[in-house]
Amino acid sequence: MADAFDSSDSQRGARPLRQAQAVTLDAPLRLESGVELSAVTVTYETYGRLDARGDNAVLVCHALSGDSHVARHGPDDDPGWWDLVVGPGKAIDTERTFVVCSNVLGGCRGTTGPNCIDPVSGRPWGADFPAITVGDMVEVQRRLLDHLGIERLRAVVGGSLGGHQALTWAVRHPERVRGCIALATSPRLTSQALAFDVVGRNAILHDPGWQGGQYYDEGPGPSVGLALARMLAHITYLSREAMDAKFDVARLQPREVATLFEKRFSVGSYLAYQGHRFVERFDANSYVTLSLAMDLFDLGATAEALRDALAPSRCRWLVLSFSSDWLFPPAQSRRIVDALIAAGKPVSYCDIEASGGHDAFLLEERLDLYGGMMHAFLDHLGDRPTVLPNAAAPLPESQPRSIFHGNRLDHELIVELIPPGASVLDLGCAIGLLLGRLRERGHERLVGVELNEAAVLTCIERGLDVVQADLEQPLSAFADGQFDVVVLSQTLQSVIDTEGIIDEMRRIGRSCIVSFPNFAYHRLRTMLYQQGRSPKAEGPYHFEWYNTPNRRFPSIADFEDFCRGKQIAIRDRLYLDSESGRRVEENEDPNWNADIAIFVLEGRAG
Amino acid sequence: MADAFDSSDSQRGARPLRQAQAVTLDAPLRLESGVELSAVTVTYETYGRLDARGDNAVLVCHALSGDSHVARHGPDDDPGWWDLVVGPGKAIDTERTFVVCSNVLGGCRGTTGPNCIDPVSGRPWGADFPAITVGDMVEVQRRLLDHLGIERLRAVVGGSLGGHQALTWAVRHPERVRGCIALATSPRLTSQALAFDVVGRNAILHDPGWQGGQYYDEGPGPSVGLALARMLAHITYLSREAMDAKFDVARLQPREVATLFEKRFSVGSYLAYQGHRFVERFDANSYVTLSLAMDLFDLGATAEALRDALAPSRCRWLVLSFSSDWLFPPAQSRRIVDALIAAGKPVSYCDIEASGGHDAFLLEERLDLYGGMMHAFLDHLGDRPTVLPNAAAPLPESQPRSIFHGNRLDHELIVELIPPGASVLDLGCAIGLLLGRLRERGHERLVGVELNEAAVLTCIERGLDVVQADLEQPLSAFADGQFDVVVLSQTLQSVIDTEGIIDEMRRIGRSCIVSFPNFAYHRLRTMLYQQGRSPKAEGPYHFEWYNTPNRRFPSIADFEDFCRGKQIAIRDRLYLDSESGRRVEENEDPNWNADIAIFVLEGRAG
Repeated sequence: MADAFDSSDSQRGARPLRQAQAVTLDAPLRLESGVELSAVTVTYETYGRLDARGDNAVLVCHALSGDSHVARHGPDDDPGWWDLVVGPGKAIDTERTFVVCSNVLGGCRGTTGPNCIDPVSGRPWGADFPAITVGDMVEVQRRLLDHLGIERLRAVVGGSLGGHQALTWAVRHPERVRGCIALATSPRLTSQALAFDVVGRNAILHDPGWQGGQYYDEGPGPSVGLALARMLAHITYLSREAMDAKFDVARLQPREVATLFEKRFSVGSYLAYQGHRFVERFDANSYVTLSLAMDLFDLGATAEALRDALAPSRCRWLVLSFSSDWLFPPAQSRRIVDALIAAGKPVSYCDIEASGGHDAFLLEERLDLYGGMMHAFLDHLGDRPTVLPNAAAPLPESQPRSIFHGNRLDHELIVELIPPGASVLDLGCAIGLLLGRLRERGHERLVGVELNEAAVLTCIERGLDVVQADLEQPLSAFADGQFDVVVLSQTLQSVIDTEGIIDEMRRIGRSCIVSFPNFAYHRLRTMLYQQGRSPKAEGPYHFEWYNTPNRRFPSIADFEDFCRGKQIAIRDRLYLDSESGRRVEENEDPNWNADIAIFVLEGRAG
Repeated sequence: MADAFDSSDSQRGARPLRQAQAVTLDAPLRLESGVELSAVTVTYETYGRLDARGDNAVLVCHALSGDSHVARHGPDDDPGWWDLVVGPGKAIDTERTFVVCSNVLGGCRGTTGPNCIDPVSGRPWGADFPAITVGDMVEVQRRLLDHLGIERLRAVVGGSLGGHQALTWAVRHPERVRGCIALATSPRLTSQALAFDVVGRNAILHDPGWQGGQYYDEGPGPSVGLALARMLAHITYLSREAMDAKFDVARLQPREVATLFEKRFSVGSYLAYQGHRFVERFDANSYVTLSLAMDLFDLGATAEALRDALAPSRCRWLVLSFSSDWLFPPAQSRRIVDALIAAGKPVSYCDIEASGGHDAFLLEERLDLYGGMMHAFLDHLGDRPTVLPNAAAPLPESQPRSIFHGNRLDHELIVELIPPGASVLDLGCAIGLLLGRLRERGHERLVGVELNEAAVLTCIERGLDVVQADLEQPLSAFADGQFDVVVLSQTLQSVIDTEGIIDEMRRIGRSCIVSFPNFAYHRLRTMLYQQGRSPKAEGPYHFEWYNTPNRRFPSIADFEDFCRGKQIAIRDRLYLDSESGRRVEENEDPNWNADIAIFVLEGRAG
């Protein structure tokens, strides 16, 4: 075992963090367990400058195996773990923000942890290092910010275990956080993720080199166990697709790696290499300490508990998940988002389509999208946002939620139908044109729901709160009667589950506005009747029968029948002939003359 | 480490297989590696009776950690690993078939393996046991069948590594296999699955108890490493959903298990228990030997290689995957099916919607479906099938591929349009009514494609070959011009990707028959024109605008325009007025008078 590693490589934490600073906070730290640490040293790095008003600080929290070196300080510096995101002109722009990143409590890269000297025994803490929580990590970060004179963060940002810290910041110190960006994270681990951690820890704790955790003085330490834990964890960071792409073509061509681990398969030599590298830079006691803190992190097993846990937060939120992440699967991010919605918090959310697995938030693959969202979100937290919405970017043709072409006369009428100051939920908000109008009109509580990720980005660039969701699914995060008005504008016809969406609107809104193209408009009727062809016209019906994104084809009369059948009270109705740009009155046979109808329905709590 | 286990429990293979028989096959066995074993002992069990013609034998192949005891021999017997499936009146009915199950070569439950005595050294083989392949396992089974006087198997059945054996049987001994049932298996492991195995083996081989694999005489053996490997593997056998359901509610309430492994979490105590139990019954050398054989199993990395590998088979195939299986994901089973289709083999396939993960083929959850399919498939391999299709079972209302109600006059006409003896692919075949008619008419090469799993079951009960697939996706398994006729009967209107499906039909069929309801039928036109309501009528258009499973609404004229635009030659056209049950002639304005149209299109290779 021991000779699986060249022990001279095993000096943990040996790579110098050249620009890191360390501060010892002398006041005793009482951990959540009740144990007291007499003093804590924090190693941290900063980037950019704190502005005069102390208003531009961004705290970046690292994941399990990270450290304070989030980015290069200059071209000659060592690579940072998030160089893609943090730096001049990047998503977290160090020319405009003051970035702070510290090694976590319990870590092994300069902040107090198991490999530091226990002042009582005079020896490294080892396995006697007290159990810590994510809350303890955040408390140390809070003291660091006090030391740095930062009263309030523009934002706290973190992925994975870093996300757990960011979530904790937002709820523990609501007055000190204006924005929270949580990537690839969760309210608590899945049982599957927990199980992998258990196996990894068992591998470490049953390695003969473990020696009860006091292996610093001699021996290689639990190198094999730690390498096994890392190999296993590494598999969980990658998606199956990514592993196939990387290893499947030449699976029997391993790289030459100096290792006693199995290297019959290319994936084996890769894992062996990852295991070795990790043992060189990481301490097994820290791995046990930090993974346990992560495994015990728990903001609530139920929707209600999670909502209550997140209720104290007063920041704006950006939550991002990645589609192929199976360690922190998107459904867990949606739980966070749902709880924030239920608690009435301002939140934007997107599940980024990505192949990179859990590691996707560290990869270039979809940086345009997740980086763009972070950049815009941070920018709008400042006083003078500079990010301009990329409104010119056309939505993809197949985008099924915004098929309306031409001017949005209907928006004008919808705005008029909405009482001043009303809270509004816009389902299928596309790039946020209607919400933008309402914001100009002074509405404060505005939320959009949209499926297309490019449209979600544009909404965030506009500074709007937008949640990515599929209107075919129940919107159960939204509470009964949570909004004054719920809007479904030119979207009804592209939703398959008509009954479901109308039902959800009426549950959530005190009042509901539905606009849709009228399939019985005279041009369409005539076309089918006279020509015997599936109707087609300018506007929402300009598609061919075989490629229209429309899924439902209601007429005004159909919709009225529908409401009658479901005993839905219609409060108001407006009809438009969008070709002539004029309204069609009730006595002008709107089902023949209008191509667009707008109905105001009574919500259940209306 | 050693005391992690009570060593008195560690007698491997100690549980007696009371009804197992063992036979020593004295002829030397030359392994694929070239190494020769001078004699091989095989432990096996049998159930039921071989009939007079020796025609009802079913070989069941076990997975990595299984053994010959596939089922109880009676009420007092120990439970078998597949009691759910094998027994009197069960899916593999021991009252009608003669079931044989043997422990694999390299195993540790009675068949020659590393824990047996090497005749040369006089000591257990240990790690000196030669590397074996799945082909070697199958060769030992073949010799066993010779010994038992079984010339030809009605079927070979296996899941996971057992599936690898079943696949190998079908291609190595085509003359001896009439049917092959492959469950939850693959042509080769994913890189992810391979990676988990690598970590597991590294845990075993770096356990100090390993002692170079010669641990039989003293010491506990690599108990910790083997337990770690098993814990890890066990996670991969369960789905994330299943783990959450089992452990997420009370995650901090571990069971009391005597273990030195971590038991802070309920999932941890469960894994510790599984690890302990496994060490009691399994040999680490066998684990290494068998997992390596599985990791090296490879029928081909590309579609072409796999097709060539499967080409020698001459059996009928039933391939089943399980939706939540992420270790042997459904896409891998589809690769097998696609290769069989490409090679022109008779195959049925279904991806069973199940939450149980890789273990789903061992669980009761969807036994009705996968057991029912196996039962019917085996039955139709016999001379006198007794399974009757459950034709009375209604398809779910939402089933989008078979919305035609009333009599199938169109089927009569379609049958007439098909040349006698032609090979036919029926897309959206539902419960196989059209294919059944064609079979009665003497057609031999008939294949159905259907999405609904209940309908797939009914087709298999009818003895038809049916492949579960989504018509929205390319049917790339089918070769250009592979069928004389491809039929899309009353299904066009429920497929969104019209262009895609027509394109695929014309690629695969020398001739294509498309039938669909005519949206310009006079009743429908009149309804929209006069009443201003979305058309609705008896038959395929009896749904409401808001709940119809139809997605496309072409008229006869539209479809003709479509063909003209795409330069698709129309060879023939028939029109029906299904209300009166009569044909509408070309000069009778079919676009007004016919509610159903049948077009014969020229295929690309036509």
